Amino acid sequence: MKTVTLLGLGRMGAALATALLRAGHAVHVWNRSAHKAEPLLALGARTGTLEAVLAASDLIVVNVLDYGASDALLRTPEAQAALDGKTLLQLTSGSPRQARDAGGWAARYGIAYLDGAIMATPGFIGQPGATLLYAGPQPTFAQWREVLLAFGGNPVFVSEDFGGASALDSVLLTQMWGALFGHLQAVAVARAEGIPLDTYAKHVRAFQPVVDAAGADLVARVRDGRDLGDADTLATLAAHYSAFVHLRDVTAQHGLHAAIPEAFDRLFRAALDDGHGGDDFALLARYVEAGAGRGSAKEAA
Amino acid sequence: MKTVTLLGLGRMGAALATALLRAGHAVHVWNRSAHKAEPLLALGARTGTLEAVLAASDLIVVNVLDYGASDALLRTPEAQAALDGKTLLQLTSGSPRQARDAGGWAARYGIAYLDGAIMATPGFIGQPGATLLYAGPQPTFAQWREVLLAFGGNPVFVSEDFGGASALDSVLLTQMWGALFGHLQAVAVARAEGIPLDTYAKHVRAFQPVVDAAGADLVARVRDGRDLGDADTLATLAAHYSAFVHLRDVTAQHGLHAAIPEAFDRLFRAALDDGHGGDDFALLARYVEAGAGRGSAKEAA
Repeated sequence: MKTVTLLGLGRMGAALATALLRAGHAVHVWNRSAHKAEPLLALGARTGTLEAVLAASDLIVVNVLDYGASDALLRTPEAQAALDGKTLLQLTSGSPRQARDAGGWAARYGIAYLDGAIMATPGFIGQPGATLLYAGPQPTFAQWREVLLAFGGNPVFVSEDFGGASALDSVLLTQMWGALFGHLQAVAVARAEGIPLDTYAKHVRAFQPVVDAAGADLVARVRDGRDLGDADTLATLAAHYSAFVHLRDVTAQHGLHAAIPEAFDRLFRAALDDGHGGDDFALLARYVEAGAGRGSAKEAA
Repeated sequence: MKTVTLLGLGRMGAALATALLRAGHAVHVWNRSAHKAEPLLALGARTGTLEAVLAASDLIVVNVLDYGASDALLRTPEAQAALDGKTLLQLTSGSPRQARDAGGWAARYGIAYLDGAIMATPGFIGQPGATLLYAGPQPTFAQWREVLLAFGGNPVFVSEDFGGASALDSVLLTQMWGALFGHLQAVAVARAEGIPLDTYAKHVRAFQPVVDAAGADLVARVRDGRDLGDADTLATLAAHYSAFVHLRDVTAQHGLHAAIPEAFDRLFRAALDDGHGGDDFALLARYVEAGAGRGSAKEAA
């Protein structure tokens, strides 16, 4: 059993501290508003000044509002001196760039740095299926892996690029938001068209394997550069678009918010205007990568 | 075994005709460009004038470019007279409104009408898992159900509302496009950040149960009106948005197409500007349903 310090006791930070306590570790906690520590003290945690809790452990875990809040706590001469030779695990939500910047800062002060991303909501912290992503020096990850298991049964080492966990987090959440915003638009159309949401839910479940297979095919095609239409193309861009116009029309007919269909429409039309109707849906990746105004001469005009 | 007429021999129409022939039915085919019938004639189909093939069968299946093309063929005095007392199954891609309009037209000419939507690409036609949705009079569906099994092992009767199959089709495709456009944006970010797409694919698969559970929770909450934040809220809108800003930033940093993040951002901000940061993601459904400029006073200004 180890001694671990946790800074930041929001909903997620409290879940992380609780998980460490349940796993039998000695836990020192600190929060800007000290009263948030009270439920954890009742569970056996200790608290003190920031200086005291930084001194108390070899592993310092941070989960505060953002990197700015973390920097305000840690980028001081006193904190930097206290962290020298210790491991800092940053679990605050941030961008890959912020993670890389923090990695550089830590190296300058002799701090072993890991940057993590939590792929779970607070209620799932500590459960066998909870995934946390980690980036930084692999030996540092290996050194603390047993402790990190307290946070979730699936700790994943992503890469030695300090930004790797944050980047993979953003990427996976992007796909999740795609699916969830898709549900939102679909639910609005369903209700406008008189389809009960239980009917929708049942058919979405049945259709899921088709969606999953189309997603896997899309990713494999982008990876392999097989984005032109071929004999294995599931549906050409023209076939997609001929079905898509009905969604656009039904959204307008019922006065629904059109932001999501309009975004899809912009990408579809950029590719179709360039003559890609017979090509695979995967070809749209070129337009996302090229950015607006560069993928299509017409769209830029 | 029955006699069936199929109008329209594009990639999908040819797959439908082939499936009927494989199931042992007598098949009459017709296409505007007659040469497309040749491969099917070699498989045992017959062809003739439009008048002749309409006369040949009690079930007429249509799969042409759009409802305009179908109307040009069938909304003539000769075709209407030929269809009197027969069943017309419209499998052309269209909107719920077009399907309802066609149902009204068919009723005026004594035509039993079914409007279907094909939830499969041509390569999957005839397979046990292929789903086709049907709307119209249930007895008409029941009468032809055995024949319709040739198209796919999962024929689903949706409702007696002629637009029901088309509406459910649009709704399910909307969710699919959400997932697929999510993949596109995610893949672009992954490549810009140096994450190999095999790594992305592996983690997307592992994360899928979380996404599926979040989607099911979202639909159930909208259904039940439980869209305010509560103890079971997986992640509040504020929590989503604090992670989302990193996607927005990384998209800008790499010059990727921002249409999709911008669409998400518009909906997030409309709700956050109205003070819904502590509420459930499901609350965004209100904004999709209300349309742009009506959900949020600030967005309308």
